[in-house]
Amino acid sequence: MTTPGRLIGVGTGPGDPELLTLKAVRAIERADVIAYFAKQGRGGNGKAIVEPLLKPWVTLLPLYYPVTTEIDKNDERYQSLITEFYDRSARDIAGHLDAGRTVAVLSEGDPLFYGSYMHLHVRLSTHYPTEVIPGISAMSGCWSLAGMPIVQGDDVLSVLPGTMAESELTRRLVDTQAAVIMKVGRNLPKIRRALSAAGRLADAVYVERGTMANAAMEKLADRSDGDAPYFSLVLVPGWEGSR
Amino acid sequence: MTTPGRLIGVGTGPGDPELLTLKAVRAIERADVIAYFAKQGRGGNGKAIVEPLLKPWVTLLPLYYPVTTEIDKNDERYQSLITEFYDRSARDIAGHLDAGRTVAVLSEGDPLFYGSYMHLHVRLSTHYPTEVIPGISAMSGCWSLAGMPIVQGDDVLSVLPGTMAESELTRRLVDTQAAVIMKVGRNLPKIRRALSAAGRLADAVYVERGTMANAAMEKLADRSDGDAPYFSLVLVPGWEGSR
Repeated sequence: MTTPGRLIGVGTGPGDPELLTLKAVRAIERADVIAYFAKQGRGGNGKAIVEPLLKPWVTLLPLYYPVTTEIDKNDERYQSLITEFYDRSARDIAGHLDAGRTVAVLSEGDPLFYGSYMHLHVRLSTHYPTEVIPGISAMSGCWSLAGMPIVQGDDVLSVLPGTMAESELTRRLVDTQAAVIMKVGRNLPKIRRALSAAGRLADAVYVERGTMANAAMEKLADRSDGDAPYFSLVLVPGWEGSR
Repeated sequence: MTTPGRLIGVGTGPGDPELLTLKAVRAIERADVIAYFAKQGRGGNGKAIVEPLLKPWVTLLPLYYPVTTEIDKNDERYQSLITEFYDRSARDIAGHLDAGRTVAVLSEGDPLFYGSYMHLHVRLSTHYPTEVIPGISAMSGCWSLAGMPIVQGDDVLSVLPGTMAESELTRRLVDTQAAVIMKVGRNLPKIRRALSAAGRLADAVYVERGTMANAAMEKLADRSDGDAPYFSLVLVPGWEGSR
């Protein structure tokens, strides 16, 4: 009987290939199969980051999302399509693992921090030897790029999705020293109102595509309410020394 | 006139040298001066992580804390000793920068996330060319080691210091999907009571020295209330799929 292969969730960091860890580089160079999530017809951001490391003989296993933003996430149809997709992806990976191949699943940022990889992890990690290699998260890439001390001492940090209701966002911003607001996109006007109501707008910094080649950053107060990319962030520093 | 050198805050990650980023490795290998924080008479954890990378000709600049836990942090004497220490350390580094030398300041974990480096950053970054290289944070090292999906979708993550009052800790644990509790140490019995009151004790995992060679991990419910190292963490996963 073949010894099953190893599943490795590999954090590829926020975009700059130099922010890969040594451990991630070695895992990618040694894997038999590289699996990665991508939109239909796209190459995938995780794959783009590691492209120069890929050996010509490695097996690539693209996992194409059946749906991204066309259907609302709370729609039943979305839930069933996406669950089926993760089930099928896990089966495809299991096939390689059963054949004794090591499978590295690329995960932008940090695999277990809002990453798609975790849907495969919960399906496979109880059946196969599994390892997770942490990566630099987008938020960490962003506050480093901004040179913004985010938390110090006994500060509380709240990581908040920009999708939440305005009143709840305001309440949580009043109740924390530091905040990272994710999923900005179309929520920017609402986020600005909540920060203003919480008295934190002046501190807030908007970061777009942090650590990518085309990163942009400005005080949120100076930014227009025009469309922001989904993967932009708003940072509110906690430490009084930084204000 | 000499062109001033570059200040680089280098995240060294949570302990495993393999979790250094490529960018951190290059910065350490190329720096003229490596500065690092340490307790008096100790080598410093950050320096231990990068030891094999240090060139024989590099200038080492240890920054010895004048005080660690002997005096309470809220004591005026602590505040004045530590402020004086950061002022003096910044002056020592400025001397090297003025002479045109690149100074890499090692920072365990992620430099701007609860790191001592930020005290130098706020003193120097407006006067010298400065770069911050993010590192894998201790919490990310810990949830990766535990294979615990920490947040997904619209989850809120709260990073909470274990030093806060029990009632406030309980209130915040009730009001979040996921939590990371830092600075566990002597606060373990209080943290356990707060988690229990919030109905989250069964989910909580205790991690000690995550990603160090002697890491330990167990369900908090199974762990005794005996002394925990200051740098241990408690993780409470947010994602219902992981429970």
